[in-house]
Amino acid sequence: MINPDRFSVVLVEPQGALNIGSVCRVMMNFGFSDLRLVTPQADHLSKPAFDMAVKAKALLHEASIHPSLSSALSDCHIVIGTTRRYGKYRDDFIYPEDIDTVTAHLDADNHIALVFGREDSGLTTAELDLCQQFLTIPTDDRLPSMNLAQAVSVCLYELSKSRLLAKKNDGEKELADSETVERMFQHMRETLTSIEYLDEQNPDHILRTFRRIFGRAVLDERETRILRGLWNRIDWLKNQM
Amino acid sequence: MINPDRFSVVLVEPQGALNIGSVCRVMMNFGFSDLRLVTPQADHLSKPAFDMAVKAKALLHEASIHPSLSSALSDCHIVIGTTRRYGKYRDDFIYPEDIDTVTAHLDADNHIALVFGREDSGLTTAELDLCQQFLTIPTDDRLPSMNLAQAVSVCLYELSKSRLLAKKNDGEKELADSETVERMFQHMRETLTSIEYLDEQNPDHILRTFRRIFGRAVLDERETRILRGLWNRIDWLKNQM
Repeated sequence: MINPDRFSVVLVEPQGALNIGSVCRVMMNFGFSDLRLVTPQADHLSKPAFDMAVKAKALLHEASIHPSLSSALSDCHIVIGTTRRYGKYRDDFIYPEDIDTVTAHLDADNHIALVFGREDSGLTTAELDLCQQFLTIPTDDRLPSMNLAQAVSVCLYELSKSRLLAKKNDGEKELADSETVERMFQHMRETLTSIEYLDEQNPDHILRTFRRIFGRAVLDERETRILRGLWNRIDWLKNQM
Repeated sequence: MINPDRFSVVLVEPQGALNIGSVCRVMMNFGFSDLRLVTPQADHLSKPAFDMAVKAKALLHEASIHPSLSSALSDCHIVIGTTRRYGKYRDDFIYPEDIDTVTAHLDADNHIALVFGREDSGLTTAELDLCQQFLTIPTDDRLPSMNLAQAVSVCLYELSKSRLLAKKNDGEKELADSETVERMFQHMRETLTSIEYLDEQNPDHILRTFRRIFGRAVLDERETRILRGLWNRIDWLKNQM
């Protein structure tokens, strides 16, 4: 699960003060606080921006301003760029629900950035080259282009859903925390590489498929233990050979 | 899956023209077209509304106006009211991802309404009494109240996700049919019983947990093959002993 303290929303040359304010509000709605603005084209400290931010005014005040996207990303370990354009990046697209999966292998203190482009023209190719992952929101072909603040809303909602729901359902079902799930995956990786099911040269290719499957399923504590039991059994079998 | 032609977004006394226009844009982004306004407090045909609607101006023009919520709902078979208030309805809450489930039993021509209240005060108790389901978006306790158009965005995104992704992935990703999945489980059962991971006397106890995990994940063809590859590898290992 994403740690909101290690996550930044980056807006590149946002043109609307209302949008910047709205982004602050929805960031706070979902528990995020670090906003980075790359050469904003609108006054983010103007009254319309504060009006839209409502109770998230502190986020606007604390937003950092950067002269370029690369300077905004200097401390980030994984950068996800949003774009609705296909073509060059076609095969590498992820959807909002995949963010948890592509960031699952990071250390707890690694920093993630989610980058949004200009309202009218998105991110340039040079800016997309600074990203490791390309995210698109599935929309209808008749009007694929979303409002900036609404696109941010959808992404942050999807990213926070399991964390916020787990909190609300606390005590009902115990979801496995990310550290426990990650230990399970490390065990799985070692075991399945040792029996040459995973390719020693590239174990993560197939493992990524399992990460997606178990990511979609959202494992609880007991299920994680049962999976580790299976890897233990295979370890035992291997040692008998 | 929701049929967008049998689905209406209902706004009760919306106060902001910008919000009404933004709702139109995001409805079109996700393939919806029927907007119903109950005594709007802002001019929904004003320039700011059209500016926010961008290419969804037709939705604004065609929005129907109603004197009361009950008249707006006269042809609806299931009504979902959004509210962040707890209390009376506490136990009946659903989340955006549950909408598909609560509407799954409807006939194809049944009509669904999703109702949003006023920006500042939401829906009244009398209005909520007209709803069969109560939906809330999981948000952070420090700022639970979302902007109206952003709340609509999140709900419509969640509702459309599987439909729009299925369309985009058409021909790329093929969900496994139940027979293929069942053959995978039979193989899994034999293999994991042979290595004494599953209890020969009662293999289905633990297998049932795996059925739940993979059931929640919804396996595609490729994933099913990858799982069978793992059972094959374990079969091979067992034969080396």
